[in-house]
Amino acid sequence: SIPPPLPIRRKFVPPINFSMVCPGICRSGYPNKKNFPFLKKIGIKSILYLCPEEYLPANLEFSRENGVHIFQYGIEGAKEPFIDIPEDVVREALVQLVDVRNHPVLIHCNKGKHRTGVIVGSLRRLMCWSLTSIFDEYRRFAGAKVRMLDQQFIELFNPNIPWNEDYLPSW
Amino acid sequence: SIPPPLPIRRKFVPPINFSMVCPGICRSGYPNKKNFPFLKKIGIKSILYLCPEEYLPANLEFSRENGVHIFQYGIEGAKEPFIDIPEDVVREALVQLVDVRNHPVLIHCNKGKHRTGVIVGSLRRLMCWSLTSIFDEYRRFAGAKVRMLDQQFIELFNPNIPWNEDYLPSW
Repeated sequence: SIPPPLPIRRKFVPPINFSMVCPGICRSGYPNKKNFPFLKKIGIKSILYLCPEEYLPANLEFSRENGVHIFQYGIEGAKEPFIDIPEDVVREALVQLVDVRNHPVLIHCNKGKHRTGVIVGSLRRLMCWSLTSIFDEYRRFAGAKVRMLDQQFIELFNPNIPWNEDYLPSW
Repeated sequence: SIPPPLPIRRKFVPPINFSMVCPGICRSGYPNKKNFPFLKKIGIKSILYLCPEEYLPANLEFSRENGVHIFQYGIEGAKEPFIDIPEDVVREALVQLVDVRNHPVLIHCNKGKHRTGVIVGSLRRLMCWSLTSIFDEYRRFAGAKVRMLDQQFIELFNPNIPWNEDYLPSW
């Protein structure tokens, strides 16, 4: 007869391209069921979802069960040279990010490369990071798929957004 | 006559390969003077320095002035196939990382790729991350310089270290 499987120590599986961005903010690709225990463990309180498509039922259920609020700021996943990132949507998304009441928050699109990279890059502008550092971080996640128009958006982005002094993060 | 230079908004310059690892822990390459205002801003309390060479005078001075404690766990920066990472040194370094009294802590070597990658990978084993996710994170920073022996060390590392229950991070 086949011996019973050895007990495997429970492992946590972060979503693809997962990383912390700064205190209270994480980024990744689209989470799936295998990632739910991990998201629960790190205590995600809200999700900033960047695709225009409806959120997957399993993820909606996970959010409901765990009291996770979903902010959807849909950006079309166009490829170069047809990238047209709506600046007003990015600005609205950033307003949610700089509000500690939403922390810890997970930013995600599909692969965690481009749309997420643009939001994080714009956030770094807000944090007054040098462009070299912003682009290096963008490239780290986009790998061979770096898009010049994403970087151009980040460079030209106007980071003056209306934040709420009472709930501003410490950074 | 030459007009005076336009005022430039002060920019923060993180060290090369800088990233947050988890709450209270950051990683990077060797910080230089341009990075000091950034390190001050994020309130680094200690540094985990992974090279056997003496710490640079400018960095020592910055640490003294800002009350930053330096833990040095020197690991030789050997190349494949001569990599021989001392497991006991990695274990001692991890003990400092899982002690909130040292947070926020910055882990760094020279480039923030290999030695830092091994320490972060070993920390992820401690956090029970799946190996796929650990290696993906390692690769993100090592880029084209991924080393199989670093990954092998991470895979075979025994993450049972003597931590202090009183000062364990919440994650």
